[in-house]
Amino acid sequence: MTDTMQRIVLARRPQGFPVDADFRLEDIDMPTPAEGEVLVRLSHMSLDPYMRGRMDYVKSYTAPQELDQTMGAGGVGEVIASKDAGFAVGDKVFGMFGWASHGCVPASQLRKLDPDLPPSTALGVLGMPGFTAWSGLDAYGKMKAGETLVVAAATGPVGSMVGQLAKKAGLRVVGVAGGAEKCKMAVETFGFDACVDHRAYKNSIEMMEALHAECPDGIDVYFENVGGQVLGGVLPIMNTYGRIIVCGMIAWYSGESDDTGKMPLQKLWRMALVKRLTIQGLLQTDHVDRFGEFLKDVAPGVKSGEIAYVEDVAEGLENAPKAFFSMLKGGNTGKQVVKIS
Amino acid sequence: MTDTMQRIVLARRPQGFPVDADFRLEDIDMPTPAEGEVLVRLSHMSLDPYMRGRMDYVKSYTAPQELDQTMGAGGVGEVIASKDAGFAVGDKVFGMFGWASHGCVPASQLRKLDPDLPPSTALGVLGMPGFTAWSGLDAYGKMKAGETLVVAAATGPVGSMVGQLAKKAGLRVVGVAGGAEKCKMAVETFGFDACVDHRAYKNSIEMMEALHAECPDGIDVYFENVGGQVLGGVLPIMNTYGRIIVCGMIAWYSGESDDTGKMPLQKLWRMALVKRLTIQGLLQTDHVDRFGEFLKDVAPGVKSGEIAYVEDVAEGLENAPKAFFSMLKGGNTGKQVVKIS
Repeated sequence: MTDTMQRIVLARRPQGFPVDADFRLEDIDMPTPAEGEVLVRLSHMSLDPYMRGRMDYVKSYTAPQELDQTMGAGGVGEVIASKDAGFAVGDKVFGMFGWASHGCVPASQLRKLDPDLPPSTALGVLGMPGFTAWSGLDAYGKMKAGETLVVAAATGPVGSMVGQLAKKAGLRVVGVAGGAEKCKMAVETFGFDACVDHRAYKNSIEMMEALHAECPDGIDVYFENVGGQVLGGVLPIMNTYGRIIVCGMIAWYSGESDDTGKMPLQKLWRMALVKRLTIQGLLQTDHVDRFGEFLKDVAPGVKSGEIAYVEDVAEGLENAPKAFFSMLKGGNTGKQVVKIS
Repeated sequence: MTDTMQRIVLARRPQGFPVDADFRLEDIDMPTPAEGEVLVRLSHMSLDPYMRGRMDYVKSYTAPQELDQTMGAGGVGEVIASKDAGFAVGDKVFGMFGWASHGCVPASQLRKLDPDLPPSTALGVLGMPGFTAWSGLDAYGKMKAGETLVVAAATGPVGSMVGQLAKKAGLRVVGVAGGAEKCKMAVETFGFDACVDHRAYKNSIEMMEALHAECPDGIDVYFENVGGQVLGGVLPIMNTYGRIIVCGMIAWYSGESDDTGKMPLQKLWRMALVKRLTIQGLLQTDHVDRFGEFLKDVAPGVKSGEIAYVEDVAEGLENAPKAFFSMLKGGNTGKQVVKIS
């Protein structure tokens, strides 16, 4: 075993869009597991939009990322040393190891992985993003066959799961994605009925017209993960009794605004009343007691290929920041992971 | 029987706050009931904030008020001629007779009143406003004992019912009202735990501080009927998992805005996500199949005096516009009705 491991820390808080100098790659001593702990060599780590929010120093649902500490992230890997009876060398596990080559954590914080599935699926389709989609739709979607659902980042791990679950429930499913290639993938790989390329439209009104063409009966469920121009296009064509599940707003994570972001609250309030909308904030951790139910429901479909997933694999821990910046701009296709070893 | 009846029509659409010249009092021929119709002499008619919205020509949940036609309104009165076997002269009934001395409508549109209760209660505590409170809280409030609820227009027919139902459910109930007298009434007559006088505060931040003093544990349920500065004070102190039931926004009905109305959507979206708020539009007509259940639940308490109600009675149809203007400015105390005969 080597004497050192690598990690990436947050060197300073980003001003707006993050840059290289906000991060620092470090060599540190390899930890030795204490009683009840397990040492893991990562094969893959996850990159997710929520990480941008944690880099700001604001009160939110999670504590902010601490400066000079390992950037937080989920990861998967193989046990290389164990001081807990429940885990043996060679076990494949998931844990919150951070942006790092290795992780040493209490056994209680680890989850053993199904050996019949690629470990990286525990970061996307069968991990937090897939569960976000599943738990949000189940708790708040009130989906009815024949209705219309819209979701952006349609080829991402949340959007692609939202779309597939809604199709299964009999809804018309319209995605939004950046570029013709992703739109093609949304339809051909993930079975969306249609997908609108947001890069082809320069404001909310054009977006609304493009969405309306694909949602002739209006929108009943909008799974919100982007905000911005897509939200601006969706709001006017929401149907009476429509549901908006507010799960994320990647377009606004680095502090930018736009016409939609600046829309007066008074206008939204009127829409909410007149159309009797339900607007519901979603955080998957509120539903985490249902994670086992989710795996039972979805894992068989992933194994059989009935549920599709796409991963975008960056190579090497040192490239994590670059891959993260690219993801924030929609440069990834599918679930963004970093291959560590 | 006289040959004519009186009515008030909308003469023109108000520009901002309505004025006398927007209305016209007319004498018209007394209608004669056709087969299946009933002629009613009104004792009281209702004035409600929603009427302001209908005066604008905008697509909403109801058709706009037509020009030169009788202003719409609920009313109660006595049957004076009947061509329907179900109604006899002398019966007390509720119907949508409008701003008028008499009404002639199909029997199917009438509801017979409980002879043991004053007919005017069918316009307020046991009518649309009371039902709005009851149905909204029941469907969307998810009230739990020990939580805190806030409602404005606390002595109005919706607010006072919201407060009394929430108290019964074991919540801490904080009202907002205009002036010391109404605040006293909210506490002493309607049993609110506290009531904040919005006239004493000149912006949302002051309002927030005043509300926070009375809601030390934050706000779990906000029953929204005013918008404006009260909403601006409520939003920052909403608790995680808070529910906002959007039932009305009287502060904004005549087109005014303010800092809260102009708050950027992006800010609300972030609050909705971080606090996992539920924002729900409410229209009582969606729940109207439960009206019988409401009466069964609430009428005994009104009869026994356990449920309090206060009416503000204007005298004479000709004074309806003046009373309406006053109500929009909060000049009424309790449910605003007009005594017609």
